[in-house]
Amino acid sequence: MVKVSVNGYGTIGKRVADAVASQDDMEVVGVAKTKPNFEARNAVENGYPLYAAVEERADDFGEAGIDIAGDVNKMLERAEVVVDATPSGVGAQNASMYDEHDVKSIFQGGEDDDVAERSFNASANYNDCVGAESVRVVSCNTTGLLRVLHPLERGHGIGKVRATLVRRGGDPAQHGRGPINDILPNPVTIPSHHGPDVRTVMDVDITTTGFKVPATLMHVHSLNVETEASRDEVVETLEEESRVRFVEPEDGISSTAEIKEMMLDEGRPRGDAWENMVWRESVSVEDGELYLFQAIHQESDVVPENVDAVRALTGIADREESVRATNQTLGI
Amino acid sequence: MVKVSVNGYGTIGKRVADAVASQDDMEVVGVAKTKPNFEARNAVENGYPLYAAVEERADDFGEAGIDIAGDVNKMLERAEVVVDATPSGVGAQNASMYDEHDVKSIFQGGEDDDVAERSFNASANYNDCVGAESVRVVSCNTTGLLRVLHPLERGHGIGKVRATLVRRGGDPAQHGRGPINDILPNPVTIPSHHGPDVRTVMDVDITTTGFKVPATLMHVHSLNVETEASRDEVVETLEEESRVRFVEPEDGISSTAEIKEMMLDEGRPRGDAWENMVWRESVSVEDGELYLFQAIHQESDVVPENVDAVRALTGIADREESVRATNQTLGI
Amino acid sequence: MVKVSVNGYGTIGKRVADAVASQDDMEVVGVAKTKPNFEARNAVENGYPLYAAVEERADDFGEAGIDIAGDVNKMLERAEVVVDATPSGVGAQNASMYDEHDVKSIFQGGEDDDVAERSFNASANYNDCVGAESVRVVSCNTTGLLRVLHPLERGHGIGKVRATLVRRGGDPAQHGRGPINDILPNPVTIPSHHGPDVRTVMDVDITTTGFKVPATLMHVHSLNVETEASRDEVVETLEEESRVRFVEPEDGISSTAEIKEMMLDEGRPRGDAWENMVWRESVSVEDGELYLFQAIHQESDVVPENVDAVRALTGIADREESVRATNQTLGI
Amino acid sequence: MVKVSVNGYGTIGKRVADAVASQDDMEVVGVAKTKPNFEARNAVENGYPLYAAVEERADDFGEAGIDIAGDVNKMLERAEVVVDATPSGVGAQNASMYDEHDVKSIFQGGEDDDVAERSFNASANYNDCVGAESVRVVSCNTTGLLRVLHPLERGHGIGKVRATLVRRGGDPAQHGRGPINDILPNPVTIPSHHGPDVRTVMDVDITTTGFKVPATLMHVHSLNVETEASRDEVVETLEEESRVRFVEPEDGISSTAEIKEMMLDEGRPRGDAWENMVWRESVSVEDGELYLFQAIHQESDVVPENVDAVRALTGIADREESVRATNQTLGI
Repeated sequence: MVKVSVNGYGTIGKRVADAVASQDDMEVVGVAKTKPNFEARNAVENGYPLYAAVEERADDFGEAGIDIAGDVNKMLERAEVVVDATPSGVGAQNASMYDEHDVKSIFQGGEDDDVAERSFNASANYNDCVGAESVRVVSCNTTGLLRVLHPLERGHGIGKVRATLVRRGGDPAQHGRGPINDILPNPVTIPSHHGPDVRTVMDVDITTTGFKVPATLMHVHSLNVETEASRDEVVETLEEESRVRFVEPEDGISSTAEIKEMMLDEGRPRGDAWENMVWRESVSVEDGELYLFQAIHQESDVVPENVDAVRALTGIADREESVRATNQTLGI
Repeated sequence: MVKVSVNGYGTIGKRVADAVASQDDMEVVGVAKTKPNFEARNAVENGYPLYAAVEERADDFGEAGIDIAGDVNKMLERAEVVVDATPSGVGAQNASMYDEHDVKSIFQGGEDDDVAERSFNASANYNDCVGAESVRVVSCNTTGLLRVLHPLERGHGIGKVRATLVRRGGDPAQHGRGPINDILPNPVTIPSHHGPDVRTVMDVDITTTGFKVPATLMHVHSLNVETEASRDEVVETLEEESRVRFVEPEDGISSTAEIKEMMLDEGRPRGDAWENMVWRESVSVEDGELYLFQAIHQESDVVPENVDAVRALTGIADREESVRATNQTLGI
Repeated sequence: MVKVSVNGYGTIGKRVADAVASQDDMEVVGVAKTKPNFEARNAVENGYPLYAAVEERADDFGEAGIDIAGDVNKMLERAEVVVDATPSGVGAQNASMYDEHDVKSIFQGGEDDDVAERSFNASANYNDCVGAESVRVVSCNTTGLLRVLHPLERGHGIGKVRATLVRRGGDPAQHGRGPINDILPNPVTIPSHHGPDVRTVMDVDITTTGFKVPATLMHVHSLNVETEASRDEVVETLEEESRVRFVEPEDGISSTAEIKEMMLDEGRPRGDAWENMVWRESVSVEDGELYLFQAIHQESDVVPENVDAVRALTGIADREESVRATNQTLGI
Repeated sequence: MVKVSVNGYGTIGKRVADAVASQDDMEVVGVAKTKPNFEARNAVENGYPLYAAVEERADDFGEAGIDIAGDVNKMLERAEVVVDATPSGVGAQNASMYDEHDVKSIFQGGEDDDVAERSFNASANYNDCVGAESVRVVSCNTTGLLRVLHPLERGHGIGKVRATLVRRGGDPAQHGRGPINDILPNPVTIPSHHGPDVRTVMDVDITTTGFKVPATLMHVHSLNVETEASRDEVVETLEEESRVRFVEPEDGISSTAEIKEMMLDEGRPRGDAWENMVWRESVSVEDGELYLFQAIHQESDVVPENVDAVRALTGIADREESVRATNQTLGI
């Protein structure tokens, strides 16, 4: 049982903790949080040893009636691997602390590429990361792009890639984030950082543009890929990918909110859509160019990737075994 | 086992079906739906016999690869009780069909009061509805008001009630509904219909005003009640109500989205908040007037009420037994 | 003075009426409206003879205290040209009425291409439309695409065009339209109709995809154009286009709402942005592909086009004269 | 001509500058801004001498190609009155600077009451402020409440006041502000600060509650006032108030966005609604309680108040003269 700790028990952290807890070959030895809110209480109810992420704020938990097991340093003493799910930029500040405690570390895509030895995506470069001291799971959008592009490249070869990312403004409970009624080219300069981020894992000629809009549920990508594959070949290739799921015409789903509704109806925890959700009707190939639309659930698509990253770092399973185990336990 | 059918398998209907299925003393003998989308597929996956709600559209299901067991008439033949969860106004059109099949019927609050023998709320008038042929479960907002007002009236007596309802514009997946960026006094004339709707169940002097805003998650009420009860007495009274839940200061929850996040974290199916969510910090009494804020989950707060209504109509349990059974199975 | 009437005095119609009224060579002889709301009152205050668009509802105006000059038939008797600014699809129903009254007619882009002799864009095909009996001013988005593509084609030649359109869900006051919190690939199939619509005016290889988002202010385009022009040449070409305006880096504008704020600050009537608003920083050319972002004001960018269409139909000015006159009077 | 300067040329400041510039008895001797964006350029185009609000950032303007006349200290040397329209809390920091330059100062409602000698509202306490060294124009919502409550109190006497404020989340161009899809009781404790703020100007028993919602256009109030006045008397009283305007049933206006549309159609600069917009149909009196709905334009309703405050401080006109002059020049 690999001893896994999670630093940062928010949107990503709590999901990773639950996913790790459901694996047969790893356990959650602790989660760390900055403040004692409803999520902290939930961690305790879930049986996760809770630690104060910030030493100076440890007393806040007691005052709120929540017992903690110590601070983040104590948590790290007990762990073999730490998943850093702190806000963007904080992970980089934590890196030396992880080194001092000699725990292997997994960072998220909000950090720069150089925070870790390698960037990681289970579909694209699991094997390259086996035994590393640290990896960075690329961001939700980059993960979504890689899950389509890497299989297509492997199966048929691809040329230039152009993608437009229509991005949610914030997660559902982030009520301090906007915009309320606006559309922002984000960034105004071209390209966005997503293309370069894809290239930290895979060699491909890609240009991405991004927009921020007043929605909270999922990102949506309009993807254009030069390829010699036919539509049928593309569909077949993606059907073989366990973390790509097709939205079927007969489902009558025309929006991200309907996808989330379907996930909730299916009983997914928190309504999570761990897979890329590709509208089957959108897949089209003409004149050597593939187009497709996919929705990416920013809160959860990297969760199975983090679980696989634990196995890659510790070397307890190869890619195929890990992905199969992760998928099976989650119900993908 | 009371044989329950559900006509209309959308936002309310699918939740009622799941809630009925989890009871020991009733079973789902069928659900009816107009079109074969992802929800229809989900009904089949959940093991509910599926019927076409509209006879002429029965073939659509086969074409979409979904087996049905017949049309709504056949479903009604097999049922003792039907829960009508069709869109507002359609229930009234269905009433005679239910009579013809001699099934007891439960309508929703979108229908006029005279669609059924009585309007129903488990907390307020369960006993008055025992043995009736039909009841109408009052709307989500009215249910939310009754759960607070009726106990206060019983416990301490109340005077004039003034409530402002800040209402969500549509449910999460209703992407055709607005507004996108607007606030609407709704209706522009005062009062809104909610006050009169409360009075279909309970005798009280109440005036309500309503606004429609660009949000999908929950309604929120600002409630003002003349009462001689102290703040402590109000809190104590509401703490005794199983379907009123306090949002605690230490939860750090300042919005409807955070409440939904907490429900998802707690593993509630579909993240449902079946109870009134009352901010404890908001409860204040001064000069004989109580103020409080509560959030009402429009998709689910009437679900336990529908289950109780089945028991009231069939007389298989008294109020206390029914509420206890419903709460226990749902996890309230 | 060409006698112009406007059928439909809503978002587009009222703007076209004001623009026509400010020209030296044409006058507004009447505007027709279906119902007597604040816009009808405004028409009267602006001195436009007001007519009932629907004969049977003519009495509604008197009851609301608004004097009308007759119904739409009477208006057409007095006009040489009618601008049809009715809702999508109604224009096609009106076409025969315009023929019967022997008035030249201008339709909007919500109608199918075959509603009129030709589709029209001042920059692209003014001269082809001179003397026609009827034209259809292409939609706001198509107009926005043509204003960039046609000059580039003329100046440098262009190859394949790929555009992603992030579209507002409704106009500011259309509170019945959604989505509230969602992103919709719209349509789910590729391409959207905008590419084919561009080709009603200009021969080009173009594929467009579209999304609908919860915003009301402007559309935004991510445009990708194969071209041999350099970035400087592209910028120079677009700077020569009077209806393309650059958003400058030093303006500090990163969103559609800030563009609207700037237009309001500049004193534009209704804060209208008649021009394509192209972020200068977004213009980039690499490997023979141009990228740029532009915001398109759906309520007003076709307004100068409608004015020019009046001149084209009646032959009172050539393209250059017309565009110059329109721009000068509006303050473009 | 009173020499007026405006420190802070954003949402409020630019409107106040324009309003001051249109008066016969005052002039704009300078406006100060922190950064050289499109609003700074607009100030120059409007002929207002522009100053750097922050001395250290003065060079930024030159680099952006915008000439300035100095920094804020130089501006204050030339002014008799300064209108502080800086962000909430900054005004308090500026107060000593204004004292040093011996200019009379007008603060906005985002500051605490003690920032100035008195809080100010033209309708309620103009005369009390004549000759003061400084006043604070109360916030948009407080201004909106006072314009209704003070006349009713004067005319008929009022008892307890209860108001629910449904507040916009941010101004149109504040794309960094949320919420995107949420409703927030704000604050969660009762009452909100608006009631106490009203009492800085007027003695009344008032309790207010507030909500924040995802809208940008206007606030809306649901107002409940104990009074012995009849509905007709209330209407008559409010009709005499020049800064209260009724939204008429025949206007067909059911939302804040439609009010803004009407303002834009009427040619108001920036579509501003300087008056309280009261739905006539909402005004109702029953059992000694008045109810009404009003929309408050947060960007502009305090603008005429600031102009009047200049006259009150300098004593150049009495209340009646000032309000008449302000209204006439603005077109109220």
